[in-house]
Amino acid sequence: MKIGVLGAGQLGRMLALAGYPLANRFTFLDTTGHPSVGIGDVMIDTDQRHLDSFLASVDLVTYEFEHLPVSLVQAIEAERPVYPSSEAIRVCQNRAEEKALFDRLSIPTPAYRLVESAEALEAAARELGTPVVAKSVTEGYDGKGQAVLRDPTDAAEAWQRINHPRLIVESFVDFVREVSIIAVRGQDGQVVFYPMAENVHVDGILRYSLAPMPDLDEAVQHCADGYIRALLDELDYVGVLTLELFQCADGSLLANEMAPRVHNSGHWTMDGAVTSQFENHLRAIQGLPLGDTEALAPTCMVNVIGREPDSAEVLAIKHAHLHRYDKSERAGRKLGHINLVADNHAELLDKVRACAALVPDAPEVRFSFERG
Amino acid sequence: MKIGVLGAGQLGRMLALAGYPLANRFTFLDTTGHPSVGIGDVMIDTDQRHLDSFLASVDLVTYEFEHLPVSLVQAIEAERPVYPSSEAIRVCQNRAEEKALFDRLSIPTPAYRLVESAEALEAAARELGTPVVAKSVTEGYDGKGQAVLRDPTDAAEAWQRINHPRLIVESFVDFVREVSIIAVRGQDGQVVFYPMAENVHVDGILRYSLAPMPDLDEAVQHCADGYIRALLDELDYVGVLTLELFQCADGSLLANEMAPRVHNSGHWTMDGAVTSQFENHLRAIQGLPLGDTEALAPTCMVNVIGREPDSAEVLAIKHAHLHRYDKSERAGRKLGHINLVADNHAELLDKVRACAALVPDAPEVRFSFERG
Repeated sequence: MKIGVLGAGQLGRMLALAGYPLANRFTFLDTTGHPSVGIGDVMIDTDQRHLDSFLASVDLVTYEFEHLPVSLVQAIEAERPVYPSSEAIRVCQNRAEEKALFDRLSIPTPAYRLVESAEALEAAARELGTPVVAKSVTEGYDGKGQAVLRDPTDAAEAWQRINHPRLIVESFVDFVREVSIIAVRGQDGQVVFYPMAENVHVDGILRYSLAPMPDLDEAVQHCADGYIRALLDELDYVGVLTLELFQCADGSLLANEMAPRVHNSGHWTMDGAVTSQFENHLRAIQGLPLGDTEALAPTCMVNVIGREPDSAEVLAIKHAHLHRYDKSERAGRKLGHINLVADNHAELLDKVRACAALVPDAPEVRFSFERG
Repeated sequence: MKIGVLGAGQLGRMLALAGYPLANRFTFLDTTGHPSVGIGDVMIDTDQRHLDSFLASVDLVTYEFEHLPVSLVQAIEAERPVYPSSEAIRVCQNRAEEKALFDRLSIPTPAYRLVESAEALEAAARELGTPVVAKSVTEGYDGKGQAVLRDPTDAAEAWQRINHPRLIVESFVDFVREVSIIAVRGQDGQVVFYPMAENVHVDGILRYSLAPMPDLDEAVQHCADGYIRALLDELDYVGVLTLELFQCADGSLLANEMAPRVHNSGHWTMDGAVTSQFENHLRAIQGLPLGDTEALAPTCMVNVIGREPDSAEVLAIKHAHLHRYDKSERAGRKLGHINLVADNHAELLDKVRACAALVPDAPEVRFSFERG
């Protein structure tokens, strides 16, 4: 099976590494001019002149990046199967569409308003009660295009800074932790769910994901399973879908956003689950049976951002798995991650501290369950 | 780190899949004209004309195939580090050298004689007592260049059929099972050992490897560890070494042969051990700390030979990991393998039977521990 991937970054790289053992071959279509995938065939196509030869070389198409022109994906869909569909991209790349879908499926979210002027932004901030967070409805990624309003009078400055004609304004949520649920839906509609992960972001960039969580009520996992199943079924989705949520003090969940692809908060599955998110995405889009999503052991993913640690020091940690993306160092750039696996959560925390001491600029971390 | 690999088959492919996460890049030198690696850069060089450009593109060299001209490897050693060294290749590609090394290190082997004529072969068969097995001292691989003599008078025909100027003649061993030990030695001399595997061959081709063995006495593992450590230290070896042995009814071990590389009987480590043999080989040759060799769970590797099973049927088995080599079907050809992982050995055996039913021509298997 020859698989075409839109995008040529680390997610595509890890898809390919999971797909070679299934006898898949990969062609990546890079529209940025800066592919970093380092594996498979790469077509650099910044002007859509090579689309035909890309399509001629693949049996089906998937993507590692959802901020693609919907019209491009629709055009590809006319020629080859695309999983997940262009409809999933259309919804996921627009926060307003995404919220409307959550509302329609009765998936709770933080209170929000849509605004199209600085004045409307100020009014929304007053109505919701500050602080609020304002985000452009499109093209947000890793904390870009966002602003926090501490007071309604911050509206003018925030509006100018974000510089986008349509914003979504959300109440701050008094959450206990950020979590995510990753699920996979097959061509036959079968759905499997990974154990939820606790995620720690700093400045909008994911730094740690830990799964399974030792203090997660089974009912909360089931609740998240239900939310994501509703999304998958509604979109007639095929492949891996990620839903990020806030968990509140009473255990309840509020949906934050979703990503129609393999996700950084699922990288722990590469070494911590029976089947990785990457393999399961490939199984799904090829119509193969989905793999078991069970966790093998407590696992924590530590992201490597901006600067690389010394590989030898990291690999000296017992049961540490290093995943480098073979990219050059640059501030804020995702360069790799480390999966730490342990027999129990206490041992895992020791490894996380030891690893964080080796990773440049790794923030201190205290997971929710440590705070009792 | 840019790694050059001599050979471009499935072992090189799996080395590369393990090495990309370490930010390694791979160039394969194929001297057969038929590379099947399907990944990395491949140089086809049947006349040594591209050796210079191969060397210019790599930092260090390893190999996936030991039947290489020693002079070629020595020439490469003059330009780049080669791990394991040409001395390991020289010894391992010649059964007479290998036996002499076993003898020198007091590693027991089946009784043997070296012969250089049909008459000497007949005399050796008489002296050792038939049946005996005669093997060419060089270029044997997967059962080629071998003959069994049921009676000393079979010597003339066997001599003609093997058609090699020097043979090694060995007593048949009344063994309980065939086993192997895989160990890794780092540049600093550190050695780590994998749990031994029980191997089932049919017609000289490996069909199953199971590890850890539920009925293996710890003392036997220590004995094998000692044998392979002696070999590693004597050869000042860096990388993965495999030693195949016979285990007799009294538990004792007799060395059969060794391979200076990652080995088919270690493929179970990809899904059944903390660190795979492939990653550990790469760690060793780059001077990185060696990874933990502990088994995660009872694991059995099922080889796919000649014809492919249906991927969907294989992947429907819980905790089955499919590893296809993306080669075309041909009688006797290694096309892939399946790693089955289970919570206990009883469950593992059920999976092995279920899997064998799906793999074309998979022989029936009864492991030693099943026979009580």
